[in-house]
Amino acid sequence: MANKQIPYKIYLEESEMPKAWYNLRADMKNKPAPLLDPGTHQPMGAEALSGVFCEELVKQELDNDTAYCPIPEEILDFYKMYRPAPLVRAYCLEEKLQTPAKIYYKFEGNNTSGSHKLNSAIAQAYYAKKQGLRGVTTETGAGQWGTALSMACAYLGLECKVYMVKCSYEQKPFRREVMRTYGASVTPSPSMETEVGRKILREHPGTTGSLGCAISEAVEKAVNTEGYRYVLGSVLNQVMLHQSVIGLETKAAMDKYGVKPDMIIGCAGGGSNLGGLIAPFMGEKLRGEADYRFIAVEPASCPSLTRGVYAYDYCDTGMVCPLAKMYTLGSGFIPSASHAGGLRYHGMNSVLSQLHADGLMEAVSVKQTEVFEAAEQFARVEGILPAPESSHAIKVAMDEAIRCRETGEEKTILFGLTGTGYFDMMSYEKFHDGKMDDYIPTDEELAAAVAKLPKVD
Amino acid sequence: MANKQIPYKIYLEESEMPKAWYNLRADMKNKPAPLLDPGTHQPMGAEALSGVFCEELVKQELDNDTAYCPIPEEILDFYKMYRPAPLVRAYCLEEKLQTPAKIYYKFEGNNTSGSHKLNSAIAQAYYAKKQGLRGVTTETGAGQWGTALSMACAYLGLECKVYMVKCSYEQKPFRREVMRTYGASVTPSPSMETEVGRKILREHPGTTGSLGCAISEAVEKAVNTEGYRYVLGSVLNQVMLHQSVIGLETKAAMDKYGVKPDMIIGCAGGGSNLGGLIAPFMGEKLRGEADYRFIAVEPASCPSLTRGVYAYDYCDTGMVCPLAKMYTLGSGFIPSASHAGGLRYHGMNSVLSQLHADGLMEAVSVKQTEVFEAAEQFARVEGILPAPESSHAIKVAMDEAIRCRETGEEKTILFGLTGTGYFDMMSYEKFHDGKMDDYIPTDEELAAAVAKLPKVD
Repeated sequence: MANKQIPYKIYLEESEMPKAWYNLRADMKNKPAPLLDPGTHQPMGAEALSGVFCEELVKQELDNDTAYCPIPEEILDFYKMYRPAPLVRAYCLEEKLQTPAKIYYKFEGNNTSGSHKLNSAIAQAYYAKKQGLRGVTTETGAGQWGTALSMACAYLGLECKVYMVKCSYEQKPFRREVMRTYGASVTPSPSMETEVGRKILREHPGTTGSLGCAISEAVEKAVNTEGYRYVLGSVLNQVMLHQSVIGLETKAAMDKYGVKPDMIIGCAGGGSNLGGLIAPFMGEKLRGEADYRFIAVEPASCPSLTRGVYAYDYCDTGMVCPLAKMYTLGSGFIPSASHAGGLRYHGMNSVLSQLHADGLMEAVSVKQTEVFEAAEQFARVEGILPAPESSHAIKVAMDEAIRCRETGEEKTILFGLTGTGYFDMMSYEKFHDGKMDDYIPTDEELAAAVAKLPKVD
Repeated sequence: MANKQIPYKIYLEESEMPKAWYNLRADMKNKPAPLLDPGTHQPMGAEALSGVFCEELVKQELDNDTAYCPIPEEILDFYKMYRPAPLVRAYCLEEKLQTPAKIYYKFEGNNTSGSHKLNSAIAQAYYAKKQGLRGVTTETGAGQWGTALSMACAYLGLECKVYMVKCSYEQKPFRREVMRTYGASVTPSPSMETEVGRKILREHPGTTGSLGCAISEAVEKAVNTEGYRYVLGSVLNQVMLHQSVIGLETKAAMDKYGVKPDMIIGCAGGGSNLGGLIAPFMGEKLRGEADYRFIAVEPASCPSLTRGVYAYDYCDTGMVCPLAKMYTLGSGFIPSASHAGGLRYHGMNSVLSQLHADGLMEAVSVKQTEVFEAAEQFARVEGILPAPESSHAIKVAMDEAIRCRETGEEKTILFGLTGTGYFDMMSYEKFHDGKMDDYIPTDEELAAAVAKLPKVD
């Protein structure tokens, strides 16, 4: 049994919570490439973006220079309802694995949205409210983001209109019901409410929708509704800024106990959680103050960092959003119906893409069956039933801990446990029943999707 | 906005966590009445009980004198994975209600079982393991208790056999799947595995089962399986002992900030949560050291304290368990299919029954529609989506806070928020769709059930 001088769970005091978000871009020598207009391929400025997004958020999106952005008092108050999130020392997992490694995880699932998404949802809703808007629109696939945004809007008295991918809407009625509890209006997408929705329904009657289509509907609705803007739960730099609260809290908790991680591991879909977790640590690395290994974990079924190309691409399937330079599989790539809905995204946040291109962050991909095996093992010893997305990080953290057992190295491993799997039990059932597949796209499939990338000089 | 010198969430340090459970019975002048043998109506001693229950738990069940029972180190370690649970100051709810009252709630839902049940599950599993047993059996209705026990058994490497009421098994496949994730064997009840199950299936083909039947199957299985015992998640005094950790933590957190509640409110089904929450406060009242109002909240559809009789009755519908003296509606009473499955119990823990009979604790009943209204209002301002059971306490706490607004009194209200409603979204859906009824049993119905109580001198 390990010597337990460090508590099982480290909770910061309220007074120790971060008062400002950290903007990693300020410390990057190679800045992320700018967003381009999908029509002209010219960099988009504040004016062009503010028809779709809230003004303050546009500023945050474009600001590559300011290192710290003060967190408004009202957002801090909201954070206090569910933060600080605990940094957990995984004593039981260490014992189970018989590893000399020290394993820590930052747990972001102790709130009703069930994930870290709430950190950015409240920020985006706050700036919308401050701008005097009436409401916001968004899309949701698995439902975590839609839930988080509904909660934030309910708290601030803002209207919330969610376009939920139709197959999720039908398969996950409970997620939908949580959003309704928070007063959101939830519409299955494609719908008859928008031009693009009607067009898709005409062309593909009976379609069960896609995230790309839901994004297009949400953007159209926002642009055409007085007092509305569109908000997005991942991929954007503003989201990564808000999510830096994860890493800042983690670093403060580790510093308090004099712990320094050797490696930092996070799952990567659009990059919001991984980017938030690593931000202050990567900042130290960029400034030459410390060194860490950073490992992005993605599903083998949707391997943008490990098998994609670094190029300009559309952020959505409907090709209405700006172009971003990122690791991408092509906006037309349709990942297999894996059980980690939050990681089924063809691209990757621009900041993380640049860091990976510069050799500052590694990436690995894992198969979903081995991910669920790790998830179940973790649940049985650590108690928490993890989300399939988060379990990608668990899998790699366990692999690293087992490697330490073999080499005898006492490494300190930190990973992000982004959320709980309470609404993913259908996936666990498939796993238990041996009905889960491990489809990996072929080189030909990937090449075909990448061939359709927009031509940008 | 309130002056926020008290944090939103008070977390004790690990070192401040209780090291011993508190046995309220030691401070009671009128002790709870003893359990009686269902056949002979004679008080049951340790020997008679230990064929069904673990030895150490039998000792705890019968001990009316020892005030403090040290919590074994192994259980403390497990507690540290999800405890201390936060004591939350409901600033946002206070503001929403525009009340001068100060509202606090002890939140027990931040663990995968989703409720306080885990506090006793780990204790019962630990003593079973220590006795060298191979496994335990139990029943579950809504599924919280079965989940908690599965988690505890997975952690200790103990087999866990759960009989789940068939209609729940079919309606709540996700709960079942969580238990499977923790390695439990889950059988829909009535089943062909037991004598009593086969008998019921012969007599009532197509029945969807009941808690009473599941208890009978679990007891039979335990008694007939080498190295097995039966465990129960509520009603018993041993469970109330383990749950005292809720009240002890709450009191320690309040003392730390110099806060004294005027009233303490909890929902009451079998009594495990309410008993645990109030224990140390009631102890002070019994010893004449302080005074508090205690309010038990029960559903109007199953009003054991407010409309039942105080008498000896069977703890289960199958009449195989000991007789307990308690407030009861009659073991044959079948409550309407309300959405607070955890409160659908015909009786009440003996200790709480005695306290109520002695005028030391009040009781009120509330209708489920008004409970869901309160739950939704709470969720929107405090973020947490509460379980229907817990929401009974929310409703009454809000009523009391509104009363303070009218009288101008600055009372301090404490209530127990026992769990989350993530697996209860079907009930929220019925509420949103206006399809929830408020059935209240008639006097005639209640009289008919009570007429069948066993005759005990």
